[in-house]
Amino acid sequence: MKGKKVDHIGIAVKSIEEKINIYKDFLGFDEIEIEELKDRGLRVAMIKVGETRIELLESTSDYSTIKKYLEKKGEGIHHIAYEVDNFDKIELLAEKENIKLLGKPAIGAGGSQVVFLHPKTTGGVLIELVLRRKENDE
Amino acid sequence: MKGKKVDHIGIAVKSIEEKINIYKDFLGFDEIEIEELKDRGLRVAMIKVGETRIELLESTSDYSTIKKYLEKKGEGIHHIAYEVDNFDKIELLAEKENIKLLGKPAIGAGGSQVVFLHPKTTGGVLIELVLRRKENDE
Repeated sequence: MKGKKVDHIGIAVKSIEEKINIYKDFLGFDEIEIEELKDRGLRVAMIKVGETRIELLESTSDYSTIKKYLEKKGEGIHHIAYEVDNFDKIELLAEKENIKLLGKPAIGAGGSQVVFLHPKTTGGVLIELVLRRKENDE
Repeated sequence: MKGKKVDHIGIAVKSIEEKINIYKDFLGFDEIEIEELKDRGLRVAMIKVGETRIELLESTSDYSTIKKYLEKKGEGIHHIAYEVDNFDKIELLAEKENIKLLGKPAIGAGGSQVVFLHPKTTGGVLIELVLRRKENDE
């Protein structure tokens, strides 16, 4: 497996409206899309920052992971996602490095595959791995 | 002010040696430099990830900010640094957006200027702004 770049950084916020000015008006990032992910109980502001994205994650459901995160830890950085080139033998590789996968790679947004790593095995950082669908598969 | 990219992401670790395998052997990032910053009581592993860097921050002094952070919050993401194009009127701009600067822009590594934003005014995220020295100044 080879990491390619930081795909995005997820930041838990109580309200996108209250925090978007930091990125838009203060930091001057102007490519922003807001998306509603009803099945995950989330609204997401995707802010293009160079080759990566900042994602402000707002809960729209009492049962979302972000709602629970906000109650437990408050606002802040929720996860870092890295784009990688393949998931070959990822279970073996993780076991070798004493890293615990949270489930198996699953289909995420836009047909990409994603898997999370348990923060207790990665120095307190919730890491998401993203494998983008190859362009010729689209 | 206009943000350009994520300059680096700082991650507080108890030991670089114990955590570097996640980035090197598991994620496959192979451009890594380790630097000792004696005046700040830190050792830093700088890991090139696309256009940005992951910086693993290890304390080498009982009085470093990272030592205090580890005691209070444990290992995890410490800050996000954005490269910006200028610091013109940054105090005014920050005041307008209700963002508190932690001090004034100061000379940081490699002659760049840096300033931090108070996490209580940025949704729980310690944000560093980096203004790189222009190439023709070098």
